[in-house]
Amino acid sequence: MKKILIANRGEIAVRIIRACKELGMKTVAVYSEADRDALHVELADEAYCIGPKLSKDSYLNFSNIISVAKLTGCDGIHPGYGFLAENASFAELCEEVNIEFIGPTADAISRMGIKDVARETMRQAGVPIVPGSTGIVADEEEGLRIAEEIGYPVIIKATAGGGGKGIRVARDKEELVKGIKITQKEAAAAFGNPGVYLEKFIEVFRHVEVQVLADKYGNTVHLGERDCSIQRRMQKLVEEAPSPALTPELRNAMGEAAVKAAEAVNYRGAGTVEFIFDHINGKFYFMEMNTRIQVEHPVTEMITGIDLIQQQLKVAAGEKLAFRQEDIKINGWSIECRINAENPSKNFMPSPGKVTMYMAPGGYGVRVDSAMYTGYSIPPFYDSMVAKLIVHADSREEAVARMKRALDEFIIEGVETTVQFHSNLMDNEVFKSGDFDTKFLEKYTIMN
Amino acid sequence: MKKILIANRGEIAVRIIRACKELGMKTVAVYSEADRDALHVELADEAYCIGPKLSKDSYLNFSNIISVAKLTGCDGIHPGYGFLAENASFAELCEEVNIEFIGPTADAISRMGIKDVARETMRQAGVPIVPGSTGIVADEEEGLRIAEEIGYPVIIKATAGGGGKGIRVARDKEELVKGIKITQKEAAAAFGNPGVYLEKFIEVFRHVEVQVLADKYGNTVHLGERDCSIQRRMQKLVEEAPSPALTPELRNAMGEAAVKAAEAVNYRGAGTVEFIFDHINGKFYFMEMNTRIQVEHPVTEMITGIDLIQQQLKVAAGEKLAFRQEDIKINGWSIECRINAENPSKNFMPSPGKVTMYMAPGGYGVRVDSAMYTGYSIPPFYDSMVAKLIVHADSREEAVARMKRALDEFIIEGVETTVQFHSNLMDNEVFKSGDFDTKFLEKYTIMN
Repeated sequence: MKKILIANRGEIAVRIIRACKELGMKTVAVYSEADRDALHVELADEAYCIGPKLSKDSYLNFSNIISVAKLTGCDGIHPGYGFLAENASFAELCEEVNIEFIGPTADAISRMGIKDVARETMRQAGVPIVPGSTGIVADEEEGLRIAEEIGYPVIIKATAGGGGKGIRVARDKEELVKGIKITQKEAAAAFGNPGVYLEKFIEVFRHVEVQVLADKYGNTVHLGERDCSIQRRMQKLVEEAPSPALTPELRNAMGEAAVKAAEAVNYRGAGTVEFIFDHINGKFYFMEMNTRIQVEHPVTEMITGIDLIQQQLKVAAGEKLAFRQEDIKINGWSIECRINAENPSKNFMPSPGKVTMYMAPGGYGVRVDSAMYTGYSIPPFYDSMVAKLIVHADSREEAVARMKRALDEFIIEGVETTVQFHSNLMDNEVFKSGDFDTKFLEKYTIMN
Repeated sequence: MKKILIANRGEIAVRIIRACKELGMKTVAVYSEADRDALHVELADEAYCIGPKLSKDSYLNFSNIISVAKLTGCDGIHPGYGFLAENASFAELCEEVNIEFIGPTADAISRMGIKDVARETMRQAGVPIVPGSTGIVADEEEGLRIAEEIGYPVIIKATAGGGGKGIRVARDKEELVKGIKITQKEAAAAFGNPGVYLEKFIEVFRHVEVQVLADKYGNTVHLGERDCSIQRRMQKLVEEAPSPALTPELRNAMGEAAVKAAEAVNYRGAGTVEFIFDHINGKFYFMEMNTRIQVEHPVTEMITGIDLIQQQLKVAAGEKLAFRQEDIKINGWSIECRINAENPSKNFMPSPGKVTMYMAPGGYGVRVDSAMYTGYSIPPFYDSMVAKLIVHADSREEAVARMKRALDEFIIEGVETTVQFHSNLMDNEVFKSGDFDTKFLEKYTIMN
């Protein structure tokens, strides 16, 4: 592969351009009318406007993106995360026009994207799943019978949902009957698919996920786990690797389960198998698989020394993985803070606008993945994450100290950001202890 | 140690403040009147002006610096590099007033600072030295006798010189007689010490140096070598670790020689033993020891995972080294480019002034140590090095590619810099081959 179109924007577009350059590949950026001054446009070898500001007209515009790729002679399209990254139709279209979609096959995307199918695939592959229904719940009666079996509370999930969308908890029969109806109706409207299924609701857990990587020849490895338990409304804010909560035995078991999950759908490229980790009982269950690169991939890069975006490009180009499972060594500790242009004191209200001063921290063990610069205007039309601050150190304690000092150096003026929120978090004793679950931010006040 | 005064400016002052913060130590910055808006002043917990713009009145002002340290209750003073870092009198003064000088003892500084003493100490310790005189040359006659023995060309060196100052080559008797007289005269004027000694002049060599680290209890380790052969007028421009020219056997031998050198002066803290490496014949000779942290220390940090400034602070605080020689592992390849505010097309003429736009590169494997920001005015009174760009990758080839992409992202507007020079260098086939010596920049044109 010699020339890659990056069908994304922001820090991940910049990240992909960097990897391409290091591998000697030419890059083509695409951008919306709102992104004319974006850094990814500046850094790519070529850049083309593909439509108006709203994503549906630009970054989700299949035909414009494919046209640019064909006209500029691109061999591959990297979708980044979000937008077209888990769109099986887009992956199929790429295949039809003979452009390499840098990600898994359309089939793997579909099988993991339809949640009850993914669940059944995992069950058959021997990956632990949360007790619940086998496939779609036909009607109220079946729902009540299953809930009785597994015990309340249960969770009703739309099979076409994911990432925290299309789910509802039921704590008794009445809530279940009502919940199934509402969720079906909402799912039909939102995803064009009314199917719902049931799972036992595990209330207290940590979000732990495993990075996998596979080539086109059936070689699949895992690169250890990430702990993403610091969430607000199911949106991750801080990620770290390794997880402070796993024993070596659980780490191995979870890694093996993730490889099984990937192999079950003939996965290729980089992917993440997310688990509900019931740390009280030391048990983990398949949550979902993200069939793309994730925002938090850098923490895995820091502790393994493996450049995941370069690996995606190499796998897509038909290279075999250059390492085996036993070659992958975990080294030290890494933490990532998502810097969002939001006001944490005002319920994390988005704060787009002009960045009048931008100065990123630097020095040993500090990495910044961002698309910001002094004078950049953050448009209000897209995700509010504008930078990722990543640190690496020998131990968790040292990583927290390094993150704290790096956050305190970070200057972003003109817009509100989550920098101070993260700095306060690094001082929180419970966070420092490593002993928390996904409800951490509901329990503790980090910022007034 | 709870509070440290940083007796320096620029990127190294920022580097030290960062390390202190990560270790939970308070920091006191000092600054000249020209450095009121400097980043180290902003980042430290406290900051005090110690004099006018010229170094001799401020950064070299013993009594002002000691007064600030005493008045603010500092336990230690970190001198960085340059300025007071290798000043034995200052180290002694610190001891007298009961403040920890973060560096070796005054005795070790002196014994390595007087070059003929250092040479004799090394000879006795069994560290290879370049053939030459034993101590100071008494007169012309002795000089001629020694030169006859070792063969021309020879090099005349002032014992109080170092770092390329106070040296002169003699290719025959006539040049020698004249050279001894001139060098003695110049040395008397410049260093207050007319003593000179003779060494065989090795014309073609690589500059390879070994990082050492010792605690106060006699434990000394080395952290591998750095290759600094890309020099202009004996000023290093690019450094890398490891050296592309060493075999594993030579690497071990040089590491062991460096440890011997350090032990011979009861060294403590971080230091560097510099060698002339005659790569044609596979022989190395002691050049000098720098009894301080060096500019290029980050490349060693990147490949060993050991934070050298934190180690200096820990050693000074009386901690034992937490690792032994066999625990130190070399991982991958690191390169550093010194970004100077100079115009490479005009004979590297300094280019101080206002930085109207500053944007450092980022992403995986990229580290920036700098004290610049958008709007910062580089004063004309100090060293022209304003940033260090450091990369880390699995192999030299990948490190060169990463450095190239990082350089091409680096934006510094308003002043001339060496960024483009370094970018061109990364494309030079001889540089890429790794096979070059200290005359590289005399032989090849990197920038017109």
